[in-house]
Amino acid sequence: MTVHDALTDFHERDWQTTRDGTLRLALVGLGWWTIEKAIPAIAASDHCETAVLVSSSTAKAERVAADVAGEGGEGGGDGVVADRPRGLSYDEFREGDARGEYDAVYVCTPNALHLEYVEAAAEHGKHVLCEKPMEASVERAERMVAACDEHDVRLAVGYRMQTEPAVRRARELVREGAIGDPRFVHGANTQRLLDIFDSPDQWRLDPDLTGYGTSVMDLGVYPINTARFLLDADPVAVQASMQSNHDAFDDVPDEHAAFIVEFDDGTYATCTASQNAHSNTFLEITGTEGTLRLDPAFHMETDLSLTVDGSTVAVEGRQRDQMRELFDYFAHAVLTDEPVSLDGAHGLVDLQAIDAIHRAAEDGERKRLD
Amino acid sequence: MTVHDALTDFHERDWQTTRDGTLRLALVGLGWWTIEKAIPAIAASDHCETAVLVSSSTAKAERVAADVAGEGGEGGGDGVVADRPRGLSYDEFREGDARGEYDAVYVCTPNALHLEYVEAAAEHGKHVLCEKPMEASVERAERMVAACDEHDVRLAVGYRMQTEPAVRRARELVREGAIGDPRFVHGANTQRLLDIFDSPDQWRLDPDLTGYGTSVMDLGVYPINTARFLLDADPVAVQASMQSNHDAFDDVPDEHAAFIVEFDDGTYATCTASQNAHSNTFLEITGTEGTLRLDPAFHMETDLSLTVDGSTVAVEGRQRDQMRELFDYFAHAVLTDEPVSLDGAHGLVDLQAIDAIHRAAEDGERKRLD
Repeated sequence: MTVHDALTDFHERDWQTTRDGTLRLALVGLGWWTIEKAIPAIAASDHCETAVLVSSSTAKAERVAADVAGEGGEGGGDGVVADRPRGLSYDEFREGDARGEYDAVYVCTPNALHLEYVEAAAEHGKHVLCEKPMEASVERAERMVAACDEHDVRLAVGYRMQTEPAVRRARELVREGAIGDPRFVHGANTQRLLDIFDSPDQWRLDPDLTGYGTSVMDLGVYPINTARFLLDADPVAVQASMQSNHDAFDDVPDEHAAFIVEFDDGTYATCTASQNAHSNTFLEITGTEGTLRLDPAFHMETDLSLTVDGSTVAVEGRQRDQMRELFDYFAHAVLTDEPVSLDGAHGLVDLQAIDAIHRAAEDGERKRLD
Repeated sequence: MTVHDALTDFHERDWQTTRDGTLRLALVGLGWWTIEKAIPAIAASDHCETAVLVSSSTAKAERVAADVAGEGGEGGGDGVVADRPRGLSYDEFREGDARGEYDAVYVCTPNALHLEYVEAAAEHGKHVLCEKPMEASVERAERMVAACDEHDVRLAVGYRMQTEPAVRRARELVREGAIGDPRFVHGANTQRLLDIFDSPDQWRLDPDLTGYGTSVMDLGVYPINTARFLLDADPVAVQASMQSNHDAFDDVPDEHAAFIVEFDDGTYATCTASQNAHSNTFLEITGTEGTLRLDPAFHMETDLSLTVDGSTVAVEGRQRDQMRELFDYFAHAVLTDEPVSLDGAHGLVDLQAIDAIHRAAEDGERKRLD
């Protein structure tokens, strides 16, 4: 394959076979990500609509619903419009209120709350798109998979890199041999959490809500999962170091983390993740014949370049709304009854790797994954 | 400090206090590196001249000497010109022939032969610039340091990255806080050895000559040492994985290697090294406030860029002959009796780290450095 072929033959939505059909979504958890990223993406999507909003109280959910419908703040109470979402409390959602008004559920709560909403959704017979990482522990993620299996509903994990066109194009290039046999991945995902949110008092730093830790769970999962997707390989062993120094990170072990992931194809990935360093995201794969680089990679904007024989070409495509691509991919798969690459069993592997990374950092011993 | 200051205040040779003085060098080992890189660099240098050439036989050394002097092949025998180097065999060198004709020795033989020529040089009272890695083992490198101490001669190790202007500028930026407190280093150094040399039958794949292995010794030493130089920090612990699959690498454990180095300032470096992957060299440091990137980094050409607040600036300087900078730095330090950053004790630390990397890969356990 030539670079020319890779450019001209590539279709951003290689998975799309129809533009018909709509999936009505209940959005569980109305934090900033849902409001600022998910709801606009769904509004712009081909296959999704926001039907139900679920939050800590009916009143809060209704307030957000009114905003979504573009109603004025105070006068919004009675002005129900055709596409105004329904607002529910978590309790009402669990009890099955309005279950006829949505087909699938998007779960975007703190990690340790995913399970209860996924279980409720499954019991209501609803398909699930759950944010990553899947849950706070491997055991709880396994229960999510079991619940969805039991009720025969789909479970997808929100790995938006897998539906980002630049990443799919990168995978195509790897598959076609543009860099020969992959040998190494370098991946970095760092940000300054305390600058992004007003207060250090937030769930990503609370081990009861985040799980094993913060930087690997929240950020390290990106290079791990993206490497898996690009290599079409799974982790077999890990090594790691981590440390927390800043007071805000007292309750989690990984303010800063570095880890090696060995894949079943022999590739080594060396990764860094931090919630308290300058924002830097890249993923680079070097093979026997070339190097592919995604930089920036993970923060909602992704650029791809390819180096072969000493020449580097920037593979430029239009920037896409990564959440819109994710929602449409999920909805399209549900509507057409096609499998997804980012299902529950797939997500479980990342959590097993993250668990092992934390155990490896604890005792300084390489951990094999079974 | 502003980026503007960093650009305008920077002096490529911040170590240079005089342009006077010449060091006469004996070059031991006339492989392609010495002939293609070292001899031209010395010819172009301010402070060095090639006085003596040492090889397996007097005849070979004389042939190269004739070439250096620009004499025709066959008629060269008698045509001694003023700046024609003297040719010696290894035995003649060890015995002290022509010892009045050189002031210092550049050792560029296979790793496991460094010790004997450094010991001979020290016995003749000559200063030494020895290629990296210092020797095939920590124990042999320690003997090199001891020999030079005993005879009160200088021992410098050929870390040409430390005298590369782009790297010195990067160190200046780190020191001045341009990226805040360093947190992570990513470093890669890969090449296809079998494409560079005609035959797999060469010393870098022979454990008797290379030492612990090939990729970490020959290539991994670059990110390790450059990170030390830029961070002004030393390694305290390592973890590693390595593998050899290709037949040519049967006798060495590290056709491909990945490793984590923990530094005494808390920084983590994640590195990859391979003698059998696409040529890729970069070193990137992310701190609390920014990211510095050297790309390409290690193969005789080095470009520097700095990212702060989402903006990246390429810090462009003239490309310099890295070996010329190294030779002049070494000679200038000897002539002015100034210390060098790349002395024997400094080089020993890298070999200790490389030894530990190999031991860590062997049993999968994090190794602390004493």
